[in-house]
Amino acid sequence: MKLDVRDLIAAPWTPMNADQSVNYDAISEYGKLLLKQGVKNVYINGTTGEGMSLSVEERQKCAEKWIKTGMDIVVTHVGANSIADVKALASHSEKIGCHAIASLPPIFYKPENLDGLVEYFSEISSAAPNTPLLYYHFVAKSGIDFDVIELLEKMKQRVPTFAGIKFTDNNLGQVAQAIDMFGDEMVVGYGKDEQLSAAYMFGVKHSVGSTYSYSGMMWNSMIAAVRRGDLAHANKYQRMQNKMLHTIFANGFNDGVHKRLLKYVWGFDLGPVRCPISEPSDQHWNEIEKQLDAMNYREFAMAKF
Amino acid sequence: MKLDVRDLIAAPWTPMNADQSVNYDAISEYGKLLLKQGVKNVYINGTTGEGMSLSVEERQKCAEKWIKTGMDIVVTHVGANSIADVKALASHSEKIGCHAIASLPPIFYKPENLDGLVEYFSEISSAAPNTPLLYYHFVAKSGIDFDVIELLEKMKQRVPTFAGIKFTDNNLGQVAQAIDMFGDEMVVGYGKDEQLSAAYMFGVKHSVGSTYSYSGMMWNSMIAAVRRGDLAHANKYQRMQNKMLHTIFANGFNDGVHKRLLKYVWGFDLGPVRCPISEPSDQHWNEIEKQLDAMNYREFAMAKF
Amino acid sequence: MKLDVRDLIAAPWTPMNADQSVNYDAISEYGKLLLKQGVKNVYINGTTGEGMSLSVEERQKCAEKWIKTGMDIVVTHVGANSIADVKALASHSEKIGCHAIASLPPIFYKPENLDGLVEYFSEISSAAPNTPLLYYHFVAKSGIDFDVIELLEKMKQRVPTFAGIKFTDNNLGQVAQAIDMFGDEMVVGYGKDEQLSAAYMFGVKHSVGSTYSYSGMMWNSMIAAVRRGDLAHANKYQRMQNKMLHTIFANGFNDGVHKRLLKYVWGFDLGPVRCPISEPSDQHWNEIEKQLDAMNYREFAMAKF
Amino acid sequence: MKLDVRDLIAAPWTPMNADQSVNYDAISEYGKLLLKQGVKNVYINGTTGEGMSLSVEERQKCAEKWIKTGMDIVVTHVGANSIADVKALASHSEKIGCHAIASLPPIFYKPENLDGLVEYFSEISSAAPNTPLLYYHFVAKSGIDFDVIELLEKMKQRVPTFAGIKFTDNNLGQVAQAIDMFGDEMVVGYGKDEQLSAAYMFGVKHSVGSTYSYSGMMWNSMIAAVRRGDLAHANKYQRMQNKMLHTIFANGFNDGVHKRLLKYVWGFDLGPVRCPISEPSDQHWNEIEKQLDAMNYREFAMAKF
Repeated sequence: MKLDVRDLIAAPWTPMNADQSVNYDAISEYGKLLLKQGVKNVYINGTTGEGMSLSVEERQKCAEKWIKTGMDIVVTHVGANSIADVKALASHSEKIGCHAIASLPPIFYKPENLDGLVEYFSEISSAAPNTPLLYYHFVAKSGIDFDVIELLEKMKQRVPTFAGIKFTDNNLGQVAQAIDMFGDEMVVGYGKDEQLSAAYMFGVKHSVGSTYSYSGMMWNSMIAAVRRGDLAHANKYQRMQNKMLHTIFANGFNDGVHKRLLKYVWGFDLGPVRCPISEPSDQHWNEIEKQLDAMNYREFAMAKF
Repeated sequence: MKLDVRDLIAAPWTPMNADQSVNYDAISEYGKLLLKQGVKNVYINGTTGEGMSLSVEERQKCAEKWIKTGMDIVVTHVGANSIADVKALASHSEKIGCHAIASLPPIFYKPENLDGLVEYFSEISSAAPNTPLLYYHFVAKSGIDFDVIELLEKMKQRVPTFAGIKFTDNNLGQVAQAIDMFGDEMVVGYGKDEQLSAAYMFGVKHSVGSTYSYSGMMWNSMIAAVRRGDLAHANKYQRMQNKMLHTIFANGFNDGVHKRLLKYVWGFDLGPVRCPISEPSDQHWNEIEKQLDAMNYREFAMAKF
Repeated sequence: MKLDVRDLIAAPWTPMNADQSVNYDAISEYGKLLLKQGVKNVYINGTTGEGMSLSVEERQKCAEKWIKTGMDIVVTHVGANSIADVKALASHSEKIGCHAIASLPPIFYKPENLDGLVEYFSEISSAAPNTPLLYYHFVAKSGIDFDVIELLEKMKQRVPTFAGIKFTDNNLGQVAQAIDMFGDEMVVGYGKDEQLSAAYMFGVKHSVGSTYSYSGMMWNSMIAAVRRGDLAHANKYQRMQNKMLHTIFANGFNDGVHKRLLKYVWGFDLGPVRCPISEPSDQHWNEIEKQLDAMNYREFAMAKF
Repeated sequence: MKLDVRDLIAAPWTPMNADQSVNYDAISEYGKLLLKQGVKNVYINGTTGEGMSLSVEERQKCAEKWIKTGMDIVVTHVGANSIADVKALASHSEKIGCHAIASLPPIFYKPENLDGLVEYFSEISSAAPNTPLLYYHFVAKSGIDFDVIELLEKMKQRVPTFAGIKFTDNNLGQVAQAIDMFGDEMVVGYGKDEQLSAAYMFGVKHSVGSTYSYSGMMWNSMIAAVRRGDLAHANKYQRMQNKMLHTIFANGFNDGVHKRLLKYVWGFDLGPVRCPISEPSDQHWNEIEKQLDAMNYREFAMAKF
């Protein structure tokens, strides 16, 4: 099944109230902030969105809110430990009109071989037979590392709604090989912010990431630079992002740290993260603010290029 | 909180119908089969029971069935990716009268340090404030490997309902150290069938395992041998089990293979496993049957000792 | 090839001068201290002995010194990255009369499958065709984890001098299975001090360890207790050792910490460890001394039982 | 200490005779073949060169041969388990005039923290006080994964001869950050062929790789394309290489497979690999030849661009 998507897909955090319950009402405003930055697509309930820390019902309600924000494309991540939950989420996503669904492989009981994984995705597909289905390749989190080319080949043959891959790994060689072999039939979205410009130079046409929520304009400008062949410009924006990323990684990065950047840059407060993710220490956060201030990160992120 | 339990706690498989839906009706008969073998306690919805492949509702229904089987102790595993699900399961377990709950650590978003894990267990505890809570230590599955002694010390201090540990790892040195330091206040249950007699020799008072479903009498006999100081006898039964375990591990062991042993020994058919766990190939299963036949495993397992 | 060995085999540290050069002269006295404790066998140049931090020439000189100490059995570890070095060490060991050699699997370039490992051991065997050869199974260090039973079967068939295994892992189920299947033809030595009594209860006849250097009498007494069926006594000594081990592990354990225990207990100073192993901090070491003093560890270790 | 190097540094295989002894005589001709392809620098005795499977003496003899081939830059890898061996190799390299040395971190006894690693490199530096020293960052092989930025900062401060890093990992974000922070003072060489063009687009100035031995002209042409801003051309060559790499990885890639490509392309036979690396099966090799023939890989590799 074909999915028509280009450029940035933001992976939003899930807004929370002080008691770690979901703040559904903030999603509408969140969507506006993305659109204002030229970010027109979202990938919700994924790793950034704490999807695996939400109940099935919470995930469904979030999807219902996001579908109303007017995004071009809403991809809903439906991965979970229980195939029963995954299918309930997939079916609901189709019902409410999500443009695509994506799933991690199962990570508690792992498939024994690639055929087992493909069968698992066939099951998902059967619950949302009219919705494009993406494989979420994220070895560092899932521990599942089948050869991507073989995986795409088998998924294509045996999963009716299969539409492509969200590739969250540094190995651009595999990305290039995937595009060369399957680029006409499916999408290959890239997911590592640290080398995003390299991915677009390598032929990637869309990408999924969490930093787009607060620096979408910078990334859009980077993509434009790659497309007009201006490597120097593309590298400049990428370098600014890498410097920011190194700052937060060197100071206790986790999703609790990261979620605060939306407030730091745009003043938009998404509230706390949910247990077991923890809030940053004051010391870490103050250091991060100090370093980001020193590099004028906020101004860069908010500037129109 | 103290939990009074001794000897074997079976970790049952979850009976399934041909379409991989849960066969709740079989649980009653399953309970009788355990009691017939002298196995009086169960640890349900855990790794063996495919708990992480079931929905919250399915897990709750299973618990409701097990609580009616007349077991002395029903421990319900409530671990899941989402703390919302975990608390719902914990609360339900308390409501229906389970004797204890147990939880794996969260495995998608991992706690950054031991304090984060303890806080997570405090959250669980708050949802079932009158039910003993056990930590399910299973590094090979969870990837979480905090120092067990330090973990027990902190849990004891900060989790009101904390009652002990289900220790599923080969390191008996840690088990001994845990018993010596905390044996008066909490339970230390052992979970590796392959060296179960050694654990009882080391001072363990109860254990949790999947093989008890089909060879409970052999294990009870082994425990009795250890307690009367008859090492030769204890080793004899342990060796028989190890030979059986080696046979199934050398022939494609997974929970799909293992579940069939209940049918092989007692003729009690629990149905298939749920995706992504897969059924054994005919070749593997036939080889297993042949080798178990050759060692008269069925006769040993069914014999009164 | 059969190796006749029983009870304790100490894995000695390598004595060093202040500049981290080998102090060969101390080996003679070290041997006497072992014999005084009833430890009659050694396994030299292994993990404890920093064998992999020594040059080929240094390892050969150490072996020449140890062979003159009058030990019943000198097993020389010959494992190294380069098969050229391994064969040079094996050949030298045979020439000077070592009773056995042992080797880790190669750990930089890893064998692709079990056959590759067996071929590697055949190469070692060819360099010492009259000396029993042991496989050093230590997954935590080597990362090589082939099925032990299959490994022993293939080694037996294809490596002429193969004599058995040094099993340094907690999985006693595999140990029991190995003894049951190969105990008449080869030796199965155990290598985890933390559960040593359990290994002897399970049928192990000899073991290899570093703590024997300073608490050989306690371990000999433990073995005697197991053999006369006195579990309570065996457990008592094991527990004392576990408490000591937990103390040093909770305080920055490395080989630099451990080497000092020989001085702590017996006043015998082996000097520093070699880079990249590091010396303990004063804070860690002082805490260790304090805790060992509090449990009278020295007095227990030096007592005749 | 500054090292002046640009563009390709080939990591050559070590020529072997049929009995797996080193064929030193072939090195001279090997050098000529590299120069003919415009590859002017070598990184010898590294992972590709089976350095860790050679004895100290063999490594020294190889270095003596390579230094006579007229390469612009000869970097000698001196990493080994024993610091005694490492220092002997470093000192010899300096004596014979190697332009730089490089070392893996120690991988059997691992440094406990970054300071331990820096101290280890200070030791190496002391043995070759006039030769630039590079850190060989290869997490997949070494298992050592300190933060690269912090590592470079500390090495710079405390290791007098420190000259930079050979970065063999896919994370280009770290590469960019390293160049931005340290590019004026030290070299950042890239080592993953699969995404080499992306690395040059990101600002890398030299790289180290094994495929350069047989396709140096294609890579040189790719570098030229990046430098003139011709992404399409750069991607074309990179894609050809990725397709070749995917072919060999999908057919049992190891260094035994890879070494044969020099014969396949240029007819230059380097002989077998050394145990424990194994030769490819006929089936795998024939499939590789068939697929490379089908893509005209040989003609591309031999063409002047």
